Amino acid sequence: MKKLNRILAFDVGGTKIAHAIVSREGKIITPVEKAMTPPTAAATEALFRQVIAQYEREIDAVAFSTAGAVDNQNKKIIGGGGNMPIGYMDIDFPALSDKPVFLENDANCAVWAEYKVGNAKGFENIVMLTLGTGVGLGIIVDGVLLKGKSGAAGETHFRVRHGNHRRCACGNYDCMEIYTSGKALNIEAKEVYQDDKVTSYDVIEGMKKGDKRAVHTFENWQNYVADAAVTFADIFDPDIILLGGSMAQFIDYGKVEKEANQKIVVSPFILRQARFENNAGIIGAALRCVWAAEGRQRS
Amino acid sequence: MKKLNRILAFDVGGTKIAHAIVSREGKIITPVEKAMTPPTAAATEALFRQVIAQYEREIDAVAFSTAGAVDNQNKKIIGGGGNMPIGYMDIDFPALSDKPVFLENDANCAVWAEYKVGNAKGFENIVMLTLGTGVGLGIIVDGVLLKGKSGAAGETHFRVRHGNHRRCACGNYDCMEIYTSGKALNIEAKEVYQDDKVTSYDVIEGMKKGDKRAVHTFENWQNYVADAAVTFADIFDPDIILLGGSMAQFIDYGKVEKEANQKIVVSPFILRQARFENNAGIIGAALRCVWAAEGRQRS
Repeated sequence: MKKLNRILAFDVGGTKIAHAIVSREGKIITPVEKAMTPPTAAATEALFRQVIAQYEREIDAVAFSTAGAVDNQNKKIIGGGGNMPIGYMDIDFPALSDKPVFLENDANCAVWAEYKVGNAKGFENIVMLTLGTGVGLGIIVDGVLLKGKSGAAGETHFRVRHGNHRRCACGNYDCMEIYTSGKALNIEAKEVYQDDKVTSYDVIEGMKKGDKRAVHTFENWQNYVADAAVTFADIFDPDIILLGGSMAQFIDYGKVEKEANQKIVVSPFILRQARFENNAGIIGAALRCVWAAEGRQRS
Repeated sequence: MKKLNRILAFDVGGTKIAHAIVSREGKIITPVEKAMTPPTAAATEALFRQVIAQYEREIDAVAFSTAGAVDNQNKKIIGGGGNMPIGYMDIDFPALSDKPVFLENDANCAVWAEYKVGNAKGFENIVMLTLGTGVGLGIIVDGVLLKGKSGAAGETHFRVRHGNHRRCACGNYDCMEIYTSGKALNIEAKEVYQDDKVTSYDVIEGMKKGDKRAVHTFENWQNYVADAAVTFADIFDPDIILLGGSMAQFIDYGKVEKEANQKIVVSPFILRQARFENNAGIIGAALRCVWAAEGRQRS
């Protein structure tokens, strides 16, 4: 097996595509460059090809952290990625380069980065929730990334509330995602303020100023995040649950950790903010690409 | 490592304690004998000692399938087991015999039995729900039993409904268990019939006769079971979800499998009744005991 030393890693989301060269140890060794996600799959593929052509002589592999579920061979997108351009999931990723091309779901890359070099280092049972526009779920069980039979494991589109209150992007009602995402805080704000123009931004700004209604709104949302922590703690008995993504910085970690640990029936877990905010995808994709190239060993 | 050929296996629940000798292939080779669970831990321990003394010369090991969470060394009970006599979890199981003594949670034994010799044979990603008085959860990920950091993984005491409607045995409100267990069908019946004397037995009898109210009550309950299947499918992307325990026989498998598969965002799963109704614990404890004695290999 060839040892990979320099990996060109992409992080592909519905809004932005970032890339950088990452070392086999997970160090970002060139500035992270960002571009807007093109509106078509063809333009997205062209962007990939252009960046790869630029670096191809100095890299050993190409790794993608991407929205959507990725198969167990890490070659293709098998579902999800609803925010991506139509046709995106049909891109032939392995054909983009003569070097090995590796693909993994972004939430899986994020938890792998935290496990190998971030705030979950030293632990073997880890759950990570990435609280952005949607919610990403990445899980490590005894040092093994949970992928499931097809590679799609780690979805939060299951019911956390009885009745049909909030329609989720997946088409179902009252999924965990529509109560714990950034979008969920937006909805919570409109419900509490009874004002369609209020957004999560107003809640965060109001909370900083100590505004009671803002604090109340945020706490409603944070309670759903705490319920999610209880859910994954009781199912996985993890050492640690990490929260990442744009909303993670606002969480009261001490409070949520304490309250959730009082409710679980397994042994106590640590709740912590993830280390790598914007670069978790790039770092995790590169590290997981190294893992795949070197024999896909169970730890 | 000594090869285990004959394992004395116990299945210890809050109501009954069963035992039999099981072969290394998972065949029950003596009649399954049952006794009422004694009211004290001391009497329970005495029962274990008496049975073990009776068989000790003809067995290679003793295996227990038990209520409660069991540590990763399979030597002691670390939590749960609320229906057991006080002091039960402090019994020194390894001291009960000169032969190797092995302990595992009953829901974990059940899924291991189904994985090795039952209705999940041939699959590597399996979720099994045992729907009895409570709900047991056993999970196999890529052929590995999910235990978590302490051994307690696989609990269903997390919120599936907003607000505080039903108090669960664990002390929290609105856990999955209090909506999907046999006890939950009892509660559902009292709610629908507005009659405190109605039980799940009346619902099942009424359903057999086509009574509309009984059918409606059962379907309410079954919908929660379907939601649970969606939850575990989206988290684990399993090949198969098995339902076991006393309530599993009444489920409409075709309907629930179809409806749940329409809601999930991962790839389709199979829903099936478990094979071993009352003997899953005994068979699984023996087979898992063999696995432990022979090196605890990941498959």
